[in-house]
Amino acid sequence: MRYSKFFIPTLRDDPAEAQIISHKLMLRAGMIQQIASGIYAWLPLATRVLQKISQIVREEQDKIGSCETLLPTIQPTTLWNESGRYDAYGEEVLRMQDRQNRELFYGPTAEEVMTDVFRTHVKSYKQLPLALYQIHWKFRDEIRPRFGVMRGREFLMKDAYTFDIDEDHARQSYRKMLKAYVSTFSRMGLTAIPVKADSGAIGGDLSHEFMVLAETGESKIYYDGKTYNDLVRTVSSDTDIDLEKFLNIYAVSDEVHNPEKCPVAPDDLKVVRGIEVGHIFYLGQKYSRPLNACVAGLDGKPQPVHMGCYGIGISRLLGAIVESSHDEKGIIWPVNVAPFQIALMNLNVKDPDTVSTCDNLYQKLRDYGYDVLYDDRAERPGVKFSDMDLMGIPYQVIVGPKGIKANQIEIKYRKDGNTHVVSLDQIVPFFQDKLMMRTT
Amino acid sequence: MRYSKFFIPTLRDDPAEAQIISHKLMLRAGMIQQIASGIYAWLPLATRVLQKISQIVREEQDKIGSCETLLPTIQPTTLWNESGRYDAYGEEVLRMQDRQNRELFYGPTAEEVMTDVFRTHVKSYKQLPLALYQIHWKFRDEIRPRFGVMRGREFLMKDAYTFDIDEDHARQSYRKMLKAYVSTFSRMGLTAIPVKADSGAIGGDLSHEFMVLAETGESKIYYDGKTYNDLVRTVSSDTDIDLEKFLNIYAVSDEVHNPEKCPVAPDDLKVVRGIEVGHIFYLGQKYSRPLNACVAGLDGKPQPVHMGCYGIGISRLLGAIVESSHDEKGIIWPVNVAPFQIALMNLNVKDPDTVSTCDNLYQKLRDYGYDVLYDDRAERPGVKFSDMDLMGIPYQVIVGPKGIKANQIEIKYRKDGNTHVVSLDQIVPFFQDKLMMRTT
Repeated sequence: MRYSKFFIPTLRDDPAEAQIISHKLMLRAGMIQQIASGIYAWLPLATRVLQKISQIVREEQDKIGSCETLLPTIQPTTLWNESGRYDAYGEEVLRMQDRQNRELFYGPTAEEVMTDVFRTHVKSYKQLPLALYQIHWKFRDEIRPRFGVMRGREFLMKDAYTFDIDEDHARQSYRKMLKAYVSTFSRMGLTAIPVKADSGAIGGDLSHEFMVLAETGESKIYYDGKTYNDLVRTVSSDTDIDLEKFLNIYAVSDEVHNPEKCPVAPDDLKVVRGIEVGHIFYLGQKYSRPLNACVAGLDGKPQPVHMGCYGIGISRLLGAIVESSHDEKGIIWPVNVAPFQIALMNLNVKDPDTVSTCDNLYQKLRDYGYDVLYDDRAERPGVKFSDMDLMGIPYQVIVGPKGIKANQIEIKYRKDGNTHVVSLDQIVPFFQDKLMMRTT
Repeated sequence: MRYSKFFIPTLRDDPAEAQIISHKLMLRAGMIQQIASGIYAWLPLATRVLQKISQIVREEQDKIGSCETLLPTIQPTTLWNESGRYDAYGEEVLRMQDRQNRELFYGPTAEEVMTDVFRTHVKSYKQLPLALYQIHWKFRDEIRPRFGVMRGREFLMKDAYTFDIDEDHARQSYRKMLKAYVSTFSRMGLTAIPVKADSGAIGGDLSHEFMVLAETGESKIYYDGKTYNDLVRTVSSDTDIDLEKFLNIYAVSDEVHNPEKCPVAPDDLKVVRGIEVGHIFYLGQKYSRPLNACVAGLDGKPQPVHMGCYGIGISRLLGAIVESSHDEKGIIWPVNVAPFQIALMNLNVKDPDTVSTCDNLYQKLRDYGYDVLYDDRAERPGVKFSDMDLMGIPYQVIVGPKGIKANQIEIKYRKDGNTHVVSLDQIVPFFQDKLMMRTT
């Protein structure tokens, strides 16, 4: 993408509306714009990150056999009467009436609708297990929307639902999903700890929250670092692993942690702060009973299925990633979720030689399949450096007349500021080496 | 994808709720489920088609330098007061109040919000031309939703907006977009005629509707077939073409056509029926004036920009494509928008040799990057044939014990029923040949 043809309205000054660093940096990098309280327009740079995150989530869901659907954002309240949640949800639901005076909800979640899809079509245990998901917009009318996209009212979420014949099978589905989550966050370059959670309003008795580590995190957690690292390694090696280990990793919130009863060796125990980016629940028959979502079992008799539900806050993740990965100059995107992998910077757009070298390099890098933001603007190098540091693209390829003459091109790694100097023809091989398996 | 692990709840019988063929076939093929009047759940097969169509639209927008964004579905009415459309839109808008009693709309369109994004960030003619788009859900509270996804209330739409310094430049942007539309629909394997249109409620004085040909189409049109074919050929060859030709192709509705004044040679004049799938407008300063979307011109003085808006009904296209491409057995997807390119059918899942041959073939076709639906179900061949014909996957690879023994595998082309017989090792080369450039 040529910067001159793209739309990245960066701000020079810190916006007054932002209280936390991710909100501030996302506004300054021209990623988002508030349209109403807790409601944002996602500008091109942020749209690309949403798509990259969504695609990783999608691939990991597909890998465990979860099938993608799209449910409507607007739901009939009749289903919520059936489940008994019509009253329970209160003012957080955005309610409306259509022109025929039928009451509708903007879905804050989709247990009811997905269970309706299930009960309409699935009649026998032979069609199980079944996992269905969607990546779609939700609305929750938060009383105090804040922290930018971290607690917005309209937000993008992956919500998956599993359907099984009994509790044993449902727990297998739960473990499979938990494994997919570890793999999903790890591909994004994140440390995301599965913390045993209270299942709260949604119900059920088995639940984990996934917390991304960030110094500014909302809650303090204690976890077994050694076992967590083992898990991530095991999951990425993709062999048959003991899924039970996932459920039992020691990871608890501040309030639950009791130093005297903690089973973790002191050297392995980590104390960190985290931001919730996912939440998974075993639901039992909480929805299948009232909604009468039954299948014929082995004995031919209909029985309510056992369900699970599994969320990932995709738009929230953008904020969480920025909270966990930035410095005083701006955002530092992990490479797999970065809006672009490479920033190609032309330091002198008036020098024909530099222009043609950059044009060729741009074409070549794109031919090799890399996402490149090509800064071809007529701006001073200082402006270009500070913009690129602000928006946090992982690699900066810096091209100016001097470098071309010496055939020494600088490649700067945004994360640590280290530079490599390579000859022009070694740039593509450099990235073939670096960008293959890298996540951060 | 293994059929046994996927969720395609086909129906044996014609659903009573469907009045038109596309609605009937999409329900029978397990693609959609009505959740409320005019509001649908998109099941996995349909979700895949939505994604394929969206991706083609996205690539063609990106190609002309249009930048992707995502605007909120929920909009503050304050912007609609500014534009003066608050009252004009009437009952078709889904209106609601949040918990702070602020009035909100579910966006039926996004001129106001996109203009707000523009005016917030763009201040000089030097930042023009600018084209911004989104692919996102809209809601229109139709008084009589019908025809399945063809006239749903919640629908997926690509809406683009262009911003230019004056009318001349705005008309250039309009022509560029028109060219992108011809290319977009042609990649989908569709004949889509740009018919000069009344600009209606949205305003402006230059407008085209794109009509996909279908016998069941809602309106009758007359057009110059020769020039249309020339245009499609020229656009796909991607050279600098006379964009003015697009604007002046003879294509008019029944009511406008006057045989005595028609400039087209009788042999070239086509009379067809069509379904509207896109609509483009030159808007002039209709929104920029009231919303005060001004930039500094060459003389340094602020002036309201000239805008255009450009829609494609993505969810509607699914219905329109099925209307235009089906037979008595079911849907016939054009290959570029088909949920899968290839259906691999195992005719005998009890024969270990057939199973291992199919498993290997499935792996190999996927390794080569093809989208394959592998029918590994324990169903009779008759059921498999009728399901596959119903859901309309372009190529059926039919594998049974007899064919394996003779090393003669049948490949059936869904569109015309023609079969090719090839040896096992010629299957991948067959598709490398067929699927490269094919659109239908």
